[in-house]
Amino acid sequence: MKILDKVNSPDDIKKLSSSELEALAGEIREFLIENVLKTGGHLASNLGVVELTLALYRVFDAGKDDIIWDVGHQSYVHKIITGRKDKFATLRQFDGISGFPKVSESALDCFDTGHSSTSLSAALGFATAKGLNGESGETVAVIGDASFSGGPALEALNHISQTKKKVIIILNDNQMSIGKNRGAFARYLNRVRTKPSYYNIKRETESLLSHIPVFGNGIYKIVKRAKSSIKYMITPGVVFEQLGYKYLGPVDGHNIENLCAAYREAKASKKPCVIHICTVKGKGYPDAESHPSEYHGVSAPSKSAEKPVTFSAQAGKTICDLAQENKSVVCVCPSMVDSCGLSDFAKLYPERLFDTGIAEAHAVTLAAGLSAKGLTPIVCVYSSFLQRAYDGILHDVAICNRHVVFAIDRAGVVGEDGETHQGIFDIAFLSSVPNLKILAPADTEELDKMLRYAVNECDGPVAVRYPRGYEPLLKVGAYTGGEPKAEVIKEGTAITLAGLGNMLHTALETAKILEERGVSAEVVSLRCAKPEDFETVAKSVVKTGFLAVFEDCSYKGGVGETLFSEIPCKHLSFSWGDRFIKAGSKKALMDFYGLTPQKAAEEIGRKL
Amino acid sequence: MKILDKVNSPDDIKKLSSSELEALAGEIREFLIENVLKTGGHLASNLGVVELTLALYRVFDAGKDDIIWDVGHQSYVHKIITGRKDKFATLRQFDGISGFPKVSESALDCFDTGHSSTSLSAALGFATAKGLNGESGETVAVIGDASFSGGPALEALNHISQTKKKVIIILNDNQMSIGKNRGAFARYLNRVRTKPSYYNIKRETESLLSHIPVFGNGIYKIVKRAKSSIKYMITPGVVFEQLGYKYLGPVDGHNIENLCAAYREAKASKKPCVIHICTVKGKGYPDAESHPSEYHGVSAPSKSAEKPVTFSAQAGKTICDLAQENKSVVCVCPSMVDSCGLSDFAKLYPERLFDTGIAEAHAVTLAAGLSAKGLTPIVCVYSSFLQRAYDGILHDVAICNRHVVFAIDRAGVVGEDGETHQGIFDIAFLSSVPNLKILAPADTEELDKMLRYAVNECDGPVAVRYPRGYEPLLKVGAYTGGEPKAEVIKEGTAITLAGLGNMLHTALETAKILEERGVSAEVVSLRCAKPEDFETVAKSVVKTGFLAVFEDCSYKGGVGETLFSEIPCKHLSFSWGDRFIKAGSKKALMDFYGLTPQKAAEEIGRKL
Repeated sequence: MKILDKVNSPDDIKKLSSSELEALAGEIREFLIENVLKTGGHLASNLGVVELTLALYRVFDAGKDDIIWDVGHQSYVHKIITGRKDKFATLRQFDGISGFPKVSESALDCFDTGHSSTSLSAALGFATAKGLNGESGETVAVIGDASFSGGPALEALNHISQTKKKVIIILNDNQMSIGKNRGAFARYLNRVRTKPSYYNIKRETESLLSHIPVFGNGIYKIVKRAKSSIKYMITPGVVFEQLGYKYLGPVDGHNIENLCAAYREAKASKKPCVIHICTVKGKGYPDAESHPSEYHGVSAPSKSAEKPVTFSAQAGKTICDLAQENKSVVCVCPSMVDSCGLSDFAKLYPERLFDTGIAEAHAVTLAAGLSAKGLTPIVCVYSSFLQRAYDGILHDVAICNRHVVFAIDRAGVVGEDGETHQGIFDIAFLSSVPNLKILAPADTEELDKMLRYAVNECDGPVAVRYPRGYEPLLKVGAYTGGEPKAEVIKEGTAITLAGLGNMLHTALETAKILEERGVSAEVVSLRCAKPEDFETVAKSVVKTGFLAVFEDCSYKGGVGETLFSEIPCKHLSFSWGDRFIKAGSKKALMDFYGLTPQKAAEEIGRKL
Repeated sequence: MKILDKVNSPDDIKKLSSSELEALAGEIREFLIENVLKTGGHLASNLGVVELTLALYRVFDAGKDDIIWDVGHQSYVHKIITGRKDKFATLRQFDGISGFPKVSESALDCFDTGHSSTSLSAALGFATAKGLNGESGETVAVIGDASFSGGPALEALNHISQTKKKVIIILNDNQMSIGKNRGAFARYLNRVRTKPSYYNIKRETESLLSHIPVFGNGIYKIVKRAKSSIKYMITPGVVFEQLGYKYLGPVDGHNIENLCAAYREAKASKKPCVIHICTVKGKGYPDAESHPSEYHGVSAPSKSAEKPVTFSAQAGKTICDLAQENKSVVCVCPSMVDSCGLSDFAKLYPERLFDTGIAEAHAVTLAAGLSAKGLTPIVCVYSSFLQRAYDGILHDVAICNRHVVFAIDRAGVVGEDGETHQGIFDIAFLSSVPNLKILAPADTEELDKMLRYAVNECDGPVAVRYPRGYEPLLKVGAYTGGEPKAEVIKEGTAITLAGLGNMLHTALETAKILEERGVSAEVVSLRCAKPEDFETVAKSVVKTGFLAVFEDCSYKGGVGETLFSEIPCKHLSFSWGDRFIKAGSKKALMDFYGLTPQKAAEEIGRKL
């Protein structure tokens, strides 16, 4: 019988012998590799935290002590040992277990995460509330070095030590964000990490220094000062110490005994602590260790052999072309270079690519600064991450009407990552930004032309939003350039189906089904969420009297609501409504929420 | 003739003798005190940077070197010496000069600011662009210690040193944000600041240390290590040095000679630099020096003797009551304690008030953490600053439907601070957040009842938005509690005037004018921007056939657009449209944009 079979709760971890625990780590690695390669999910990051997590439940008391997982994609080990190992076949699937902590899934998932850099703030909330409630128990935040570049984490780091609340920050230093890690903190950690003998040197030096003889007053003072400064001289964590934290580390993140010792020391401390743990991303799976970026997130095995060009790949290709034609074109990307399709750009134009690390607000204002000096920055970012830069878009880009192009990838529902990663709010929060244009291509050729239009023909801010993956190429009515006005791409008389971006395909297929049922549907390609082309849509509606709008975003603040406010008529919205969309394949989600052509046609049929 | 009269451009500063420069500093202080006490504006912060600014233009070349003012409310001295001193009588007034840097005002205002913590990102953009463009010139960001707690600034601090771009960060350390300063960085700076002799000690020690004799190998190693670590041991800026910056300081911010020396050293450096300058906020005006918080922003002298209770004061009072009744009530406030009306709360419940410093994203996630452990956090924040926490509202508060109350002060147009401070986007960005309720009281009594409803009767997220200043109490139809549905508060037949929050008064006055002209207007108090009470409004519109919506926010994403999308009828919007609103008194702005009752009545008359 495997040890893993005996582990159903964190308490079981406390009962194991040291050697059993080591064996369990190996079994968990096998379990992760076997399962995650099947379902898809975050493999490398979870392989890296096996010992870190086991040691946590060895030292801390689940239930009484709160453990908050930053980002949360490294919580699989936690999920395995908190009673969910039997559900791993459903990982990230519709109605399955989430790839992130979910309060709704387990009482031991104490805080939902998804975007990085929030765990320290939440942990301070927990620690403070426990103090006020008179509850005991530690509060632990487990945060990766990559998340440490994010503004909210740095704000919290700045605040926690001032409050003197006891938060234990476990800094999981794998020297990687999704791609290569960035920034002063990361480089500082790297210098510390490469001096693993610091701890011993510290003890040795303290002893030896007490024997330095004293010559005269001047030297005496120096030695005295040296002694009081010994901590700064040889403590690797001087930055954290100066910022008010007890620093423990660096600790070998794959040595359970050392991990437990550091956790115990932190538990005994009265001050907030930073435990600096060095882990190897992908540990125990040679392919993942040597290519951690590729194994950060793996996809479930796909059936189709040849895949069309994805929107991300097309964006990267077009941006390379634009950069070649126009020396002013530069890219700003917050830690998503490869996944935004910019690998080639990074090779061709390294001096024109600015990877800020996870730092979305900074990235947008950096772009505004670049634009102020005559460059044409393209900010490549996922829709849901752009939420963090809303203020900068308004103030630093839009007020001065700066020519900044936003290439918004993963717009619309992305699927398996669930609520926090669905890019369904961008039209809502962007359409209230004065001066900003929002374009949405239906296929990769439209994306190409829209990016060219945004860079070459606009002089203010423009957002081009496009989905994850790919869509078939439009057979008729594709955008060919110039001002992206709406256009009737199929004529009809009984209803107007207006489609934005990728949802134009759904509108076209719905039209086909309706035609088969004898209903003549007119299809309008909207192309632009702002400014809205009311005229073209209204003209069509005069004829049909019925408007259905298809869009891959929330209803509130979407283009449907705006069209309905200006064009009074019978109408229907096919959007994601006013709700969060949980994990599942996009197909399953579209079916569940009635957004497939079949279900749309039925709904329309009922309202005709 | 005054020296100030001879100064019309930064070049003139270079021509002055040292004693003339000292005299000029005094004249500028007199000018500031005389003018700003008349017009209102940021007094204390500008008095603190007189020498800092003069020295800047002594060492740097305006036009070639770019100087970016973080927040920008400390740019008055810069404005005075860049040719705008004759316009100071129009400061912050409609069509006058702005209280912040404006690219549109002067070529020497190279980047518009308003919200804090953006200057480092912008400066990196400038420095990078100059490099790519082959332009020479330095890039300087002047940032206060309070702004240093903001996420975007910390993100940029983390990124700049990695890029190795030459940015000079002038850290204006006056140990104050608008109120009391916060956070680990501020406390670190304070420790550094209180050791002004560091610089001399450093030189002395380096010389003496070279004479320490060497006894045996062990000790030798230590001394060697001590020498190489001498920088950490005695450099006050070890944190900045470790993060990759050349640290210069602390420098006396009122000694022009010392300032120039530090600036020159930074100019000669190849690395990015942090110049730590200690200034006294309010310097030279005894009242402002001893009460810098009161003199941070001063208002123009007011004519009216007795003022009604402001919305901020009412919010503070109600929150104190709620805290007394309910031990779970706590407040989170990002650096706005006094101006959000929380002075009494701070005295009565210091352990239940969490002032995060300028750190809006952290503040909201902290509140989510407090809520997760059973407390009832009220986040008190200005509307425009909440823009920075949009992602946290969505993810950390709304997904789990946490009971967090947002007390949104300065919602709607605030007037003199201009574009960046107008709180007109909150309804737009909040109404797309699932699960969130948005209430808007018309007077302080409604505010009191709505806050009580939000705290005592809701169990998910609720925002209560209210304007700066005060409004008269409603004579009829005030909200009395319970679910805040819309209500007809005056009957009529020809048009429905629906008013949200403070704009209900405009709707009522417009109705009065229309009645005088024989037009019977029905007035609906909306109370709630989300969920919308379509039924009540639609019922009224069935009768009148014409709907006008009054709201103190942007049109896009506002409640008008939503009502029009659901209630097809002839309609008009009285809102701020889809644009940024510049500075001016609220009265002047309402008149200019046609939002006074007189202009609204005229507009309605034309459309009847």
